[in-house]
Amino acid sequence: MSFLPSTRPIWPHPEEEGVVQVIDQRLLPHKVQILDLRTVEDAIEAIRTLTVRGAPLIGASAAWAMYLAAFTSPGGRAEYPWMEDCCRRIKEARPTAVNLAWAADRLMEKLVGVPEGPERIVAMYEEAAAVTDEEARRCRAIGEHGLPLIQEIARVKNGAPVNILTHCNAGWLACVAYGTATAPIYAAHGAGIPVHVWVDETRPLNQGSRLTAWELGEAGVPHTVIADNTGGHLMQQGMVDMVIVGTDRTTGTGDVANKIGTYLKALAAKDNGVPFYVALPSSTIDWELEKGSDIPIEARSPDEVRYVHGMDDEGRLTRVLVPPAASPAMDYAFDVTPARLVTGLITEKGFCAASREGLLSLFHEP
Amino acid sequence: MSFLPSTRPIWPHPEEEGVVQVIDQRLLPHKVQILDLRTVEDAIEAIRTLTVRGAPLIGASAAWAMYLAAFTSPGGRAEYPWMEDCCRRIKEARPTAVNLAWAADRLMEKLVGVPEGPERIVAMYEEAAAVTDEEARRCRAIGEHGLPLIQEIARVKNGAPVNILTHCNAGWLACVAYGTATAPIYAAHGAGIPVHVWVDETRPLNQGSRLTAWELGEAGVPHTVIADNTGGHLMQQGMVDMVIVGTDRTTGTGDVANKIGTYLKALAAKDNGVPFYVALPSSTIDWELEKGSDIPIEARSPDEVRYVHGMDDEGRLTRVLVPPAASPAMDYAFDVTPARLVTGLITEKGFCAASREGLLSLFHEP
Repeated sequence: MSFLPSTRPIWPHPEEEGVVQVIDQRLLPHKVQILDLRTVEDAIEAIRTLTVRGAPLIGASAAWAMYLAAFTSPGGRAEYPWMEDCCRRIKEARPTAVNLAWAADRLMEKLVGVPEGPERIVAMYEEAAAVTDEEARRCRAIGEHGLPLIQEIARVKNGAPVNILTHCNAGWLACVAYGTATAPIYAAHGAGIPVHVWVDETRPLNQGSRLTAWELGEAGVPHTVIADNTGGHLMQQGMVDMVIVGTDRTTGTGDVANKIGTYLKALAAKDNGVPFYVALPSSTIDWELEKGSDIPIEARSPDEVRYVHGMDDEGRLTRVLVPPAASPAMDYAFDVTPARLVTGLITEKGFCAASREGLLSLFHEP
Repeated sequence: MSFLPSTRPIWPHPEEEGVVQVIDQRLLPHKVQILDLRTVEDAIEAIRTLTVRGAPLIGASAAWAMYLAAFTSPGGRAEYPWMEDCCRRIKEARPTAVNLAWAADRLMEKLVGVPEGPERIVAMYEEAAAVTDEEARRCRAIGEHGLPLIQEIARVKNGAPVNILTHCNAGWLACVAYGTATAPIYAAHGAGIPVHVWVDETRPLNQGSRLTAWELGEAGVPHTVIADNTGGHLMQQGMVDMVIVGTDRTTGTGDVANKIGTYLKALAAKDNGVPFYVALPSSTIDWELEKGSDIPIEARSPDEVRYVHGMDDEGRLTRVLVPPAASPAMDYAFDVTPARLVTGLITEKGFCAASREGLLSLFHEP
């Protein structure tokens, strides 16, 4: 199995109906393992445990979870009350990513007008595939719209590599192909523009060092892993030309919820005149929210901070406790970067300002 | 052995001349191990490997290294060329902390006027003890001068705990007793003021989660370990009342070099109206430097980013590799926080603005 920017992290089992397969992202980069999801509970568990993660992939996983719900419905007919109950439970799996509810609701709506029975299972399969394909197309378009921003810097730098800092993993693993933040990077690399990526390790779960570094390595993109603390210093030293991050939820006013720590990098970018871009598919826009502080921020298990997972010197995947066993810890998964710190949004429809006016120049408010 | 804020992390062996003992800080918090230093090389190695770390302790260690140099001098008479060579090598152990050169030079100067021979060994011992005691007294005074800042917030909060965020370890382990950033916290806790400390884990070496959390736990101070990415979000949510950090080198104009990531917290504090204090003994002031960007920033081994040390589930101290084995990493140890982001400096002589005028109101330029 080779892993290119176009690779997908979720797919229906090629030979077995009622089975969806995913890459277990908890074991990367040291082990690539494929998991079979057979029930709604399997899918919810995969979302909750971050076996699958990243806003667009969470959306796609929710869609495929609805297919599994239909396939495993007690009467085999995707009965409405059962599907409604599954939809509710899927939406409760994680609180921050708007794609989760968006995708589950979209499949729920698709049930309307389809009579109970096997047609509903087919309808769920087709709609899940459509959600997934659309996300992949959106990411590819994000890459096309972000490419000129990198090209412009490359032109000014006259052959020297463009240094791009990114936080967390908004790559194909998080999305459905190409990624959001990584899509312009892959597009630039593919176009022969010299790029170098500063990869924030992204504590506590190290999605940067574990996933983004792995993706970039597989694609042959030059990169360097850094502690999350490092980006400010690099910007002060002129070693970062631009920042590109993804987002889990964007308000209609351009405030951006993304992995915890994004806000700190946005502050540093502002302080040093480094452009700070957010790449997003429109599925992550929450038009109903007026301001970022309304976005619910997920608090996760303190053990995610206390333990670090990796490979020991004997090649075993294990975890180590870092702080004293008796010390409490706290884990917030996201923070909100206010629109005033965002240079612009890279979407599947084009580039726009991080504001209601900017978003409305590309999208209709639903 | 009990560990109180007044505990010292370095001391002359109580029974054996020519031996200095330190706590091996690399093994904390899971193991408390005392190391004997017998030669200049032992001491340099301890400084270089972060067995001892923290600007004031590095200074004290340099002073005791000069004592070891005298004790182990080839002719047993602390000959000038030998001592001069040792002094130079000690000063090269690490580049950023100004205390290192300051303390080594101070002991070197003390040689002048003392005839070659055993008196010089005694002079080095006494001066090393004096450097150490002075650091301890300075830290205690920092605590007294910082206490009113916490008291004032406690008064306004009317019984609710004062939430203080700190980065890295500027506690008694880093200093010689009480700590710098922690001294006001210990003073407040001792005075019965309810405090709660947000402990930045401080990647890559986790001095916060390993050392500060351990110190605070031993002293019974309520605290919570957080990923370095978290502080900005906490400040946005009004969950941080003040930030106190230490410094490895402060310019005569009030720019502050401290553990990498400090700058990001200072930006977040400014953006959220949270006071940002730097606690420092005057030994960390580098009067000759006009601006922070002149401070040399140490680049350390990429493996410090790639590997995380801790205790595995079987209780073994081990390390795990987090990013792909093939991914490069980079490790800068410090960054510079410009004076404009610093609310004020807490020194052993009192509180002052982070500026040349502020410093000159308390100290004479040497």
